Amino acid sequence: MAVNLLPPDPESLLPVPGVELGFAEAGIRKAGRRDLMLMCFVPGTRLAGVFTQNSFAAAPVNVCRSHLAMSADCRALIVNAGNANCGTGAAGLAAARRSCDLVAQAIGCQSTDVLPFSTGVILEELPVGKIEAALPLCVQSLAAANWADAAAAIMTTDTVPKGASASAMVAGKRVTVTGIAKGVGMLEPNMATMLAFLATDAAVSAPVLQHLVRDVADVSFNCVTVDGDTSTNDSFVLAATGAAKNNEIAAVDSPDYADLRKAVVEVATVLAQSIARDGEGATKFITVSVESAGSVKEAARVAKRIANSPLVKTAFFASDPNLGRLLMAIGNAGVTDFDVSKVDLYLDDVKVIESGGRAASYREEDGARAMKAAEICIRVRLGRGAASATVWTCDFSYDYVKINAEYRT
Amino acid sequence: MAVNLLPPDPESLLPVPGVELGFAEAGIRKAGRRDLMLMCFVPGTRLAGVFTQNSFAAAPVNVCRSHLAMSADCRALIVNAGNANCGTGAAGLAAARRSCDLVAQAIGCQSTDVLPFSTGVILEELPVGKIEAALPLCVQSLAAANWADAAAAIMTTDTVPKGASASAMVAGKRVTVTGIAKGVGMLEPNMATMLAFLATDAAVSAPVLQHLVRDVADVSFNCVTVDGDTSTNDSFVLAATGAAKNNEIAAVDSPDYADLRKAVVEVATVLAQSIARDGEGATKFITVSVESAGSVKEAARVAKRIANSPLVKTAFFASDPNLGRLLMAIGNAGVTDFDVSKVDLYLDDVKVIESGGRAASYREEDGARAMKAAEICIRVRLGRGAASATVWTCDFSYDYVKINAEYRT
Repeated sequence: MAVNLLPPDPESLLPVPGVELGFAEAGIRKAGRRDLMLMCFVPGTRLAGVFTQNSFAAAPVNVCRSHLAMSADCRALIVNAGNANCGTGAAGLAAARRSCDLVAQAIGCQSTDVLPFSTGVILEELPVGKIEAALPLCVQSLAAANWADAAAAIMTTDTVPKGASASAMVAGKRVTVTGIAKGVGMLEPNMATMLAFLATDAAVSAPVLQHLVRDVADVSFNCVTVDGDTSTNDSFVLAATGAAKNNEIAAVDSPDYADLRKAVVEVATVLAQSIARDGEGATKFITVSVESAGSVKEAARVAKRIANSPLVKTAFFASDPNLGRLLMAIGNAGVTDFDVSKVDLYLDDVKVIESGGRAASYREEDGARAMKAAEICIRVRLGRGAASATVWTCDFSYDYVKINAEYRT
Repeated sequence: MAVNLLPPDPESLLPVPGVELGFAEAGIRKAGRRDLMLMCFVPGTRLAGVFTQNSFAAAPVNVCRSHLAMSADCRALIVNAGNANCGTGAAGLAAARRSCDLVAQAIGCQSTDVLPFSTGVILEELPVGKIEAALPLCVQSLAAANWADAAAAIMTTDTVPKGASASAMVAGKRVTVTGIAKGVGMLEPNMATMLAFLATDAAVSAPVLQHLVRDVADVSFNCVTVDGDTSTNDSFVLAATGAAKNNEIAAVDSPDYADLRKAVVEVATVLAQSIARDGEGATKFITVSVESAGSVKEAARVAKRIANSPLVKTAFFASDPNLGRLLMAIGNAGVTDFDVSKVDLYLDDVKVIESGGRAASYREEDGARAMKAAEICIRVRLGRGAASATVWTCDFSYDYVKINAEYRT
């Protein structure tokens, strides 16, 4: 049950000039379910991405890295759900490359201009023949207005498709940013996998686009955690078609960069929060905000430690103000030379911890009231500096165990 | 439901010359339940301990550290269940010191010769008046044969008391090592807390005893994880009364040290494994053994990452050989310059992963059979060096969520 999250109105997902999307049922995931998505770009489109840090990066992630290094342009993304093509060795790499070859033949480009993405079961061979069979349907269905259908075609156990759009004036031209994402679901014996595909018609130089992707990832997708288990397939890419014909953005300290960044951050943030709202078994959407930290890294570490603690997450599921667990989680974040007597903590407007201990004004009924809400903000002040960080997560319910333990019964 | 764990036979817990134990119902935890334990030592007893690394170390932990620094002898431990005395500021420190004063008056020693320990709810004031009222009963009941009763008196939501004994010949004298531990339970709004109290009648010099405690902790209690949340109150202490009259062990490279270490490791290992067997909601006892790592630290990091992954733990609860999750967990351990094509993985005798991918010989039914057992060993070979590490954990069940979410309903 996603928390305050509805499917995007197809009308609200703005077409991006230079981008078309197609989809099909390839039968990789399960019968009667779209599981193949093709996103095509006009010639001259640049793309930058960030990928999983997991040492067992999946075959498609390795092929993406290699193709991005070899090709200046990007002409297509081919995405399947139901199989992660991970832990599949040389055969997996060959299958990922083969799917790029097939797309290149179908749309007329180099194989290295195509990037492959997979999400689903690990340690199983990718049935690339099914992709070959369904690809013509993907190509036939290509259209600029298909963002909502594309969002549905990349889902695994997501309960709600995820998409968002924004627009901005950049160097006097109206530009559009639209994106879709999937995660964090589980149905087959696989793991939560995040894929996010954003596109804009802005013209952006290659190094600035790469900077923008990393910059945006740090304040959006990297701020989400459901269970602390980083997938082998995580990928976030941003394509820039240049169809808006703005003067190319070539400097990261320019006002144009700031204008475009704002729109991309807006889309990425909605998608990232959507992932936490639809987290496995989620009944609550929780924002953890850590302030007055010594560094952004320190703030993020404290926020992640809170957001990943099973004891904190089960307490929020129960709406039980068992708030000593927050103290425990903060204390476990490995902050050095930590004067805990400076720590304050608020649950929405309720001050729970003051100077490292129970706040004199805290009453259990106020904590209980705050925890009953479907959306809750935990705000921590460390009293060490001026840095801050925010993380979005969900609670930990019986359904988390059910989704991850009982999908075969 | 603890996995293959019975209460210790009181006869099997050998008295340690120089040690007496008493217990009482102080009413701190709940009515009709022993929750106060006093362990007394003969004059001249040395004690060394290791304590939580949590920045919010509880008041009794801070008092322990201070008293150990001030006093060469240790004469008594006073332990309460039901209240952690953590996040309680100056009042909490005063309460912990007051309980030491009370014990010192009752048995006739300095207050700094007494160490206080607490486990239970965080952010609540310790009702030290209840300790004062019940202490005379503790003193009256002091006896050398009370180890099993003491093990029961320190439990929170442990379902089974935990104790073990071993003996060894050290420098021609028979010495005894007996210990009790509690963890990892939850009933009130608190967190899992591990306390372990071991005693021996061996004579050991102060620096060697401190070395021994750290040495043993690294291969026993530090190898246990249930949910990755380190408590604010974790404490493991070893008292050496010297009553065996052996020549004092004064060197860590001596045969006598090795003989005593073997017995202490034996007791600590049984207690540490007992904690995982009685982990919250446990239905399986899982040993994660990582071999051929570049360093012990690296091996331990990989083992802990597997043991703490909610996705791995829920798969084991379901007995479902969803083994790509093991790949994911290994890949998330932050091993640098990691050639994953050298990784092999066994589930008991079943080879699952070979050269970083699915083993050619692997059949799903073999994985399913291995996962149905109540005790399972995950063995990983990293192919990087000669170091290894082992971690003990349990699976992640509905009852984990229930215990941690629904204790008030």
